[in-house]
Amino acid sequence: MTKQYDVVILGGGVAGGSLAHSLRRQHKTVAVVEDNLFGGTCPNRGCDPKKILMSGLEVTQVVSDMQGNGITGSVSVNWPDLMRHKRQYTNPISDATRNGLISDGVDTYHEHAHFNSDGLLDAGNQILAGKQYVIATGQRPAILAIPGSQFFKTSTDFLNLDNLPKDVTFVGGGYIGFELAGIARAAGATVHLVHHNNRPLKQFDQQLVYEEIKRLSKLGVDFHLNTDVEKITQVGEQFVLSGEKFRLPTDMVFCTAGRIPNVDTLGLENVGVKVDQHGVIVDDHLKTSNPNIFAMGDVVSTKRPKLTPVAGFEAGYLASYFNGATDPIQFKAIPTIVFGQPSLGQVGLPSSVATDDSRYMLITNDMTKWYSYHRLNEPLAKAKVVIDRDAETVVGATVLSNHADYLINILTMMIDQQMKIGDFNQQILAYPTVASDVQYLI
Amino acid sequence: MTKQYDVVILGGGVAGGSLAHSLRRQHKTVAVVEDNLFGGTCPNRGCDPKKILMSGLEVTQVVSDMQGNGITGSVSVNWPDLMRHKRQYTNPISDATRNGLISDGVDTYHEHAHFNSDGLLDAGNQILAGKQYVIATGQRPAILAIPGSQFFKTSTDFLNLDNLPKDVTFVGGGYIGFELAGIARAAGATVHLVHHNNRPLKQFDQQLVYEEIKRLSKLGVDFHLNTDVEKITQVGEQFVLSGEKFRLPTDMVFCTAGRIPNVDTLGLENVGVKVDQHGVIVDDHLKTSNPNIFAMGDVVSTKRPKLTPVAGFEAGYLASYFNGATDPIQFKAIPTIVFGQPSLGQVGLPSSVATDDSRYMLITNDMTKWYSYHRLNEPLAKAKVVIDRDAETVVGATVLSNHADYLINILTMMIDQQMKIGDFNQQILAYPTVASDVQYLI
Repeated sequence: MTKQYDVVILGGGVAGGSLAHSLRRQHKTVAVVEDNLFGGTCPNRGCDPKKILMSGLEVTQVVSDMQGNGITGSVSVNWPDLMRHKRQYTNPISDATRNGLISDGVDTYHEHAHFNSDGLLDAGNQILAGKQYVIATGQRPAILAIPGSQFFKTSTDFLNLDNLPKDVTFVGGGYIGFELAGIARAAGATVHLVHHNNRPLKQFDQQLVYEEIKRLSKLGVDFHLNTDVEKITQVGEQFVLSGEKFRLPTDMVFCTAGRIPNVDTLGLENVGVKVDQHGVIVDDHLKTSNPNIFAMGDVVSTKRPKLTPVAGFEAGYLASYFNGATDPIQFKAIPTIVFGQPSLGQVGLPSSVATDDSRYMLITNDMTKWYSYHRLNEPLAKAKVVIDRDAETVVGATVLSNHADYLINILTMMIDQQMKIGDFNQQILAYPTVASDVQYLI
Repeated sequence: MTKQYDVVILGGGVAGGSLAHSLRRQHKTVAVVEDNLFGGTCPNRGCDPKKILMSGLEVTQVVSDMQGNGITGSVSVNWPDLMRHKRQYTNPISDATRNGLISDGVDTYHEHAHFNSDGLLDAGNQILAGKQYVIATGQRPAILAIPGSQFFKTSTDFLNLDNLPKDVTFVGGGYIGFELAGIARAAGATVHLVHHNNRPLKQFDQQLVYEEIKRLSKLGVDFHLNTDVEKITQVGEQFVLSGEKFRLPTDMVFCTAGRIPNVDTLGLENVGVKVDQHGVIVDDHLKTSNPNIFAMGDVVSTKRPKLTPVAGFEAGYLASYFNGATDPIQFKAIPTIVFGQPSLGQVGLPSSVATDDSRYMLITNDMTKWYSYHRLNEPLAKAKVVIDRDAETVVGATVLSNHADYLINILTMMIDQQMKIGDFNQQILAYPTVASDVQYLI
């Protein structure tokens, strides 16, 4: 039996769900097919649970910073309690998300879907036919193809661990590896982070990455840079990672070496949708090589950071497009944060642009002794801001501090609004706050 | 002996110091006369030390919120340590501020100054003659004129207490009383807050003030509203506050019933500068009734909140004015925060405007169960945002949460930039953060 829809969306994550609701407001008929949890990665096994678990790091760290400076006593992370606190938030997400779609008139299918040779979508016992289709199936953790790879756990497993082992290892120094390492260390584990070269977090300012690594090392994270893990073997209840001149026994090993797009079982070859290793190839209207099929969110092949608000923005774009708008998609500045204590945030043009182009000026500030950081005795706070000399605007920034997201969001607004620095300084912001410091940064 | 200057500034606080530096960049000769600490109220006995002591409240509260939700153990405030931490910051301020002025070529006088009958400024053994004068002498705590008023301590005393008594009382429910009550309670004191009517924090949204009072009461602050203190007597080592049907023994009593301008000993009658009970009367160029004498900062008679960034803004205005600019002063939105856990912040038009004028719409959100607040198990988070329906802009907001300053600063930028809500939502802010929630608030 074939069911007809205006739009069929593959994937019920942030992008898919958001687009479905928007299309219902346009009175279109919509189906959403999801083979895993409705809500997708972000609220179930991504940003949201991660930052709930990170509350353990935040609280223990702020206490530790202030011990002897006004705070007496000590605290520790109780992992099972923290996991329960996380599950209170995450457990209801999938049903609530699906019910929200249903009550908005969206047909939902909890099935794995693929395009069949007729170009229609097989979803379990149903055939779904859309005037248009949108692929929003996201990504999943990549697993290094080495002997013993079956012993790898993923970030999804980490974010749902009933108990945290005494010794854990993360293989891959991207933002997920850094964030989970911080969480695990704060919760009392011995933590190793293995990275194949000496440029972890390669898309971030490397000076500040180096500071972050120094800080995490001081807190006890054991970094193994320039280290290739060639195999994993099970020895008793432990796993041994090994490579050239490298041997590391550990209780649990997580592969945090990036994520790969969920494209391989969608039957895209049946509908002529082209992909590369980064995902579905789209044009500047998010249209794939099949004019009736679009793609958005993490599954898209793009150099943009694959982030929740980017997925949401793309869903908003497609909602407008399906409603008749014709402009190509255009992105505002996209801030990215490696959450931790400190967090590392970046937005806009990288610091290096100022070296290459005299139009830009780089202002570097060590804020560690500034009031906002002294106040809570924070050990490390630095910022780099890139200024367009002629336009007198901020065009990029990297911030390393416990409050990096606060500063980065303010600076993102300055970039997006192309605010003259002089105009920013005419504003009166609440004092003393992280935001009221911005005038001293620029 | 008379010394001649282009500009003589009475008061070496935030406004005076800032203006002095700006005028030096204009190659003017400048004197600053300060009879107390250089740097003035804010860094020595105001915002900055207050918020350092508030770190005790913040840390103990975040631990308490998360106890049983992932955090085990407990902490308490060690007042002498906290005071030492504060003094590390505040002790060097006055000398450093004065030295900064001196090395910038400003003549500084640590004297009380007053205009003499010749219209010149007596500053100790010196007579200072300025082509122009700027009064920036700030305010001091008001002391209720009741029998026993000599037993009142002030906020200045509180912020410099070697030891915190077991039982303290604040008389006056303005923002200073609320903030100090929160700090003292978190540090383990029994705390009373006495206010003469039932509208403490009267300039804030009263519904959210009520929520704040409920919260502080739950944390143990004992509110005595509609209560007039008629006298204070010393009984043994305690003080007894009494009034009609009211008797309260306490270890230390602070008068937090507002602040009064420092105008009474300046000899203003000798130079025809008019004042009222709120301070020096100025026009929209900050000019007093004497055309060669200006005033700025807390000492000015105004309905604007008397805040550090407002003083800084006025100093910036006068610097431009003395450099030839002629426009009247115009203020952007002025956010005000009662810091605490939660903090109460407000900016722009009050919520009540939406009741009175159909052009405006009030959006009220209980954010307590929202992700950003659930994450740290925060007990209370609410926001009210006033929207201009036709302009589709935010024009006012009140926020009650541990992160109120973060939200209020973002909303202040929206107000100042007259950002359309649609344009705001086209921005990509770091997720998940307090700022990325704003799209759900408006």
